[in-house]
Amino acid sequence: MAQRRHGRLERLLPILGWGRAYTREDLSGDLLAGIVTAILLVPQGMAFGLLAGLPPQAGLYAAILPPLVYAFLGTSRTLAVGPVSVAAIMVAQALAGLSPGADYVSSALLLAFLAGIVLLVLGALRLGVLANFLSHPVLSGFTSAAAIIIILAQLPHLLGLTMPKHLPLADAPRLALEALRNLNLPTLGLGALSVMLLLLSGRPLERALVRAGMTAAHAGVIGKTAPLAVVLVTTFLVAGFRLDAGHGVAVVGTLPTGLPDFGFAVPGLETLAELFPSALLIALVGYVESVSIAKTLANRHRQTIDPNQELIALGGANLAAAVSGGMPVAGGFSRTMVNYSAGARTQAATILTALLVGTVALFFTPALAQVPKAALAAIIIVAVSRLIDFHGAVEAWRYDRHDGLVLLGTFLGVLLVGIEAGLTLGVVLSLLLYVWRASRPHVAELGRLPGSEHFRNVKRYDHLETWPEILLLRVDEHLNFANSAYLEETIMERVAGRPRLKHLVVVASSINGVDLSALEMLGKLAHSLRLADVTLHLAEVKGPVMDHLKHTALIQNLAPGRVFLSAHEAVETLARHGPKPG
Amino acid sequence: MAQRRHGRLERLLPILGWGRAYTREDLSGDLLAGIVTAILLVPQGMAFGLLAGLPPQAGLYAAILPPLVYAFLGTSRTLAVGPVSVAAIMVAQALAGLSPGADYVSSALLLAFLAGIVLLVLGALRLGVLANFLSHPVLSGFTSAAAIIIILAQLPHLLGLTMPKHLPLADAPRLALEALRNLNLPTLGLGALSVMLLLLSGRPLERALVRAGMTAAHAGVIGKTAPLAVVLVTTFLVAGFRLDAGHGVAVVGTLPTGLPDFGFAVPGLETLAELFPSALLIALVGYVESVSIAKTLANRHRQTIDPNQELIALGGANLAAAVSGGMPVAGGFSRTMVNYSAGARTQAATILTALLVGTVALFFTPALAQVPKAALAAIIIVAVSRLIDFHGAVEAWRYDRHDGLVLLGTFLGVLLVGIEAGLTLGVVLSLLLYVWRASRPHVAELGRLPGSEHFRNVKRYDHLETWPEILLLRVDEHLNFANSAYLEETIMERVAGRPRLKHLVVVASSINGVDLSALEMLGKLAHSLRLADVTLHLAEVKGPVMDHLKHTALIQNLAPGRVFLSAHEAVETLARHGPKPG
Repeated sequence: MAQRRHGRLERLLPILGWGRAYTREDLSGDLLAGIVTAILLVPQGMAFGLLAGLPPQAGLYAAILPPLVYAFLGTSRTLAVGPVSVAAIMVAQALAGLSPGADYVSSALLLAFLAGIVLLVLGALRLGVLANFLSHPVLSGFTSAAAIIIILAQLPHLLGLTMPKHLPLADAPRLALEALRNLNLPTLGLGALSVMLLLLSGRPLERALVRAGMTAAHAGVIGKTAPLAVVLVTTFLVAGFRLDAGHGVAVVGTLPTGLPDFGFAVPGLETLAELFPSALLIALVGYVESVSIAKTLANRHRQTIDPNQELIALGGANLAAAVSGGMPVAGGFSRTMVNYSAGARTQAATILTALLVGTVALFFTPALAQVPKAALAAIIIVAVSRLIDFHGAVEAWRYDRHDGLVLLGTFLGVLLVGIEAGLTLGVVLSLLLYVWRASRPHVAELGRLPGSEHFRNVKRYDHLETWPEILLLRVDEHLNFANSAYLEETIMERVAGRPRLKHLVVVASSINGVDLSALEMLGKLAHSLRLADVTLHLAEVKGPVMDHLKHTALIQNLAPGRVFLSAHEAVETLARHGPKPG
Repeated sequence: MAQRRHGRLERLLPILGWGRAYTREDLSGDLLAGIVTAILLVPQGMAFGLLAGLPPQAGLYAAILPPLVYAFLGTSRTLAVGPVSVAAIMVAQALAGLSPGADYVSSALLLAFLAGIVLLVLGALRLGVLANFLSHPVLSGFTSAAAIIIILAQLPHLLGLTMPKHLPLADAPRLALEALRNLNLPTLGLGALSVMLLLLSGRPLERALVRAGMTAAHAGVIGKTAPLAVVLVTTFLVAGFRLDAGHGVAVVGTLPTGLPDFGFAVPGLETLAELFPSALLIALVGYVESVSIAKTLANRHRQTIDPNQELIALGGANLAAAVSGGMPVAGGFSRTMVNYSAGARTQAATILTALLVGTVALFFTPALAQVPKAALAAIIIVAVSRLIDFHGAVEAWRYDRHDGLVLLGTFLGVLLVGIEAGLTLGVVLSLLLYVWRASRPHVAELGRLPGSEHFRNVKRYDHLETWPEILLLRVDEHLNFANSAYLEETIMERVAGRPRLKHLVVVASSINGVDLSALEMLGKLAHSLRLADVTLHLAEVKGPVMDHLKHTALIQNLAPGRVFLSAHEAVETLARHGPKPG
């Protein structure tokens, strides 16, 4: 009993599991990873806060309490939860849609709160499966489009324009022109320097370090700390040459010192309703991305991710963001990879990262005041440009037109109309195309491989045995409302061409379900066939399908038709009683 | 060549087909059926016009030109196209939703016009299959709810209240109370008499006639002409006792003499947009009902219905309604059954019916002026009460909770919110539940029937052969975005409990498709299994699925995994190379 209660507690608080088995070896890995990730997270957090149209501390605060909560509740050992670029741009679009005069910061906290509630409710109902409706092509199209929107939104920062709070895509060309006229050369210089440093610190630096004798893993980790180097170099340049006051270079500015206010203003029902659709999508998209990263890494070590516990953990992290002044959070891909490749073995690394970021927020915000926004914009642009997956889109199109269409529809919808409209379009399109495909199922006429009990499609194999008085049709699909009319027509057409036909056997080996519309159709089919002196039989009906059918009028009124165990049995029985094969 | 061109023309004008083969025998059947159907159609047409909130002639005119057009274009020999009760109540609800001051008659013509265009466009695109998205439970829930709405809308007529143009359901109790207070006794008397006559002329009259020596078919036909008897009797009573002027019995009133004006006012874009959603649903519902009636009867005679040509024919009929002062039309169930059982063999019967109704509209409308509305209300109420299918709802619920839910949702939606909202709810619900079901597929572990090549579910059969180093899993579903995460987890869980496992064989006999999300999942699965020293194999992959998969990285990187023709081959190969069965 104690053991069982214990197991249940451990499921609710996974930290108890890995915490109890924590080793000295784990500690050394977690220490380095915690420090490296914190180095990345400070500039990233500020950048994502700005990207969301919020003050930079909204991103920084999202990197303190939420990851701590996740560390206690999450089932992934290495997922780095905190502010992420995609959630940031979704927040920016949601805020842009608010009625004028709304308070952006409190609305962002409200989004985190609502997203947290959505995730917790889904977790309590064990509905993690709902996230699957965001299919791979939907996510891929969405991510590419979101990356492009993010880059466009950051360009003015990089070029030294005062960025409008929200950038409608249609205005991008006009703003670009304006940027060329009002170009702030020192800002452009800092931006270009940052981009160059970041690009050089990727593959080129790693290769150089490896050539100098470092292991590939360590070289990768050092490469990933480039954002700190960029921030340090550009901030020193700003401070040294007084680029901010003297030359109009935009900087982060004075951040509040100390920890965030813990608290949360209770909003009105109307505001809740206005923000709910955005919060729902932020929650679902963040959840799907987090779980897919977590699963990928867990698989490498035969660890398991519990999708329903992840709902609870990410829900808790978002509530923590809401009460501690942070924007909505999720698991970030690039930061998780840095954490993992720097040697993180448990969420202890995350705890260390959070404490370090908290220390920065508590004592060192004055040092951050002169970080140029152009450097942060460069960090974001370089990071998200890797998310634009043109190759994947071409692959999807080649593999399957439907998947390609869904991807393209989502991409264009997100880019041209907006994130919510685009995602909704993608989900609806994937559902419709799914049912559409099921509405015209493959129907194969079967014949017997001579001398065997195996039946195959007569169109794919030569010299199969067939019988003029027996037609065996295998239907490769659920029977349901979407295809029952089509199947009725198809079957009657195939029967029409065979004057000697006496028996139609529907081979149900690929039929995984029969809904009410299809049941009606089968009844009508049996009746129509009877009028044409053809008897309907079934064969190879699966267990679960038969359980469902056996009490229906269809089976009870099928006689003289029968339900055969196999196509072989059907032919043996029917050919024996009927005329000889022709 | 001439032959082929000829066949194409016949497909566009099916009348050329049956017209050329027309026999004297056909003529005698068609003559009687044409007359009997006309007798039913005159009172029905007026009643449906009133039901739609229009003057009675809108129904009468819909019974002249539209059936003539259908007779030339339609592929059904016996479908009776014209005004129908369900389309009438849909028109009534659409008109009720219009901005105040709209012209009801011209809006109804516009609905017919738009419905016609929708059907023609769908026909030109050969998209008849779209109608399948209105599944059986959606239609059943909708029809029952529509019947209840129609009956509630007709009650005031029956009780002699001045009916408001549109009856909100919530007002029904209040109106009923008012009715009790303001009861018009002569109207109530006529209504009760009509209902009684109609009920008696159903089963009781038919039985009596059969007992008197008539054939069941003829007795049925005579029973179906009861509406004319009701109209005649009650009209004589009204005329004889001056019930209209003297006692406040509502009558049809003076109808315009002569044929309708041919013509059509061109509407503004705004009006078109306002009416379009209603027109779309009227078109789809009417189409689905018409085709299902037509198919049922065609099956009895091994005739075929071309669903795409039916779109053209019904589209043409609705355009004809729009230009000749008629409300939207469809194939009517009860009238088609009367036409069929009275002996109709071709659409010549319909042509005769239309000419007879046209003659009435041309010369005899003065005689219709004193038809009491209560009699028409009684005809409608008795007819549609048969459409309330409580038994079917219980059956649906018993057969399948999902189908039951869709039916109930549509029923409640239509009854409590409105026809359009209810139908939309039903369609969305059926799509979602469909994908939901596909998201948790049945996965069966297979074992071999000893001494055979047959593999069965180990949970359903005892004493099957299994192997500790081989696991055979049959997945009973498409692999797609909705279920790939679930399948990955399920498969990894089943693998986790088997330390000696070396080979996992996915038996794909029930897999009818693999989408991009699932393809990714299989790649990840193969990788995860490899890390656990388990090799992934496939077996019994269907031809169309293999065609799709064979050029993908999955199959190219499957080695040392293989694609086996059958589960038997997989076991024979893998067990031979692996350790002996334990």
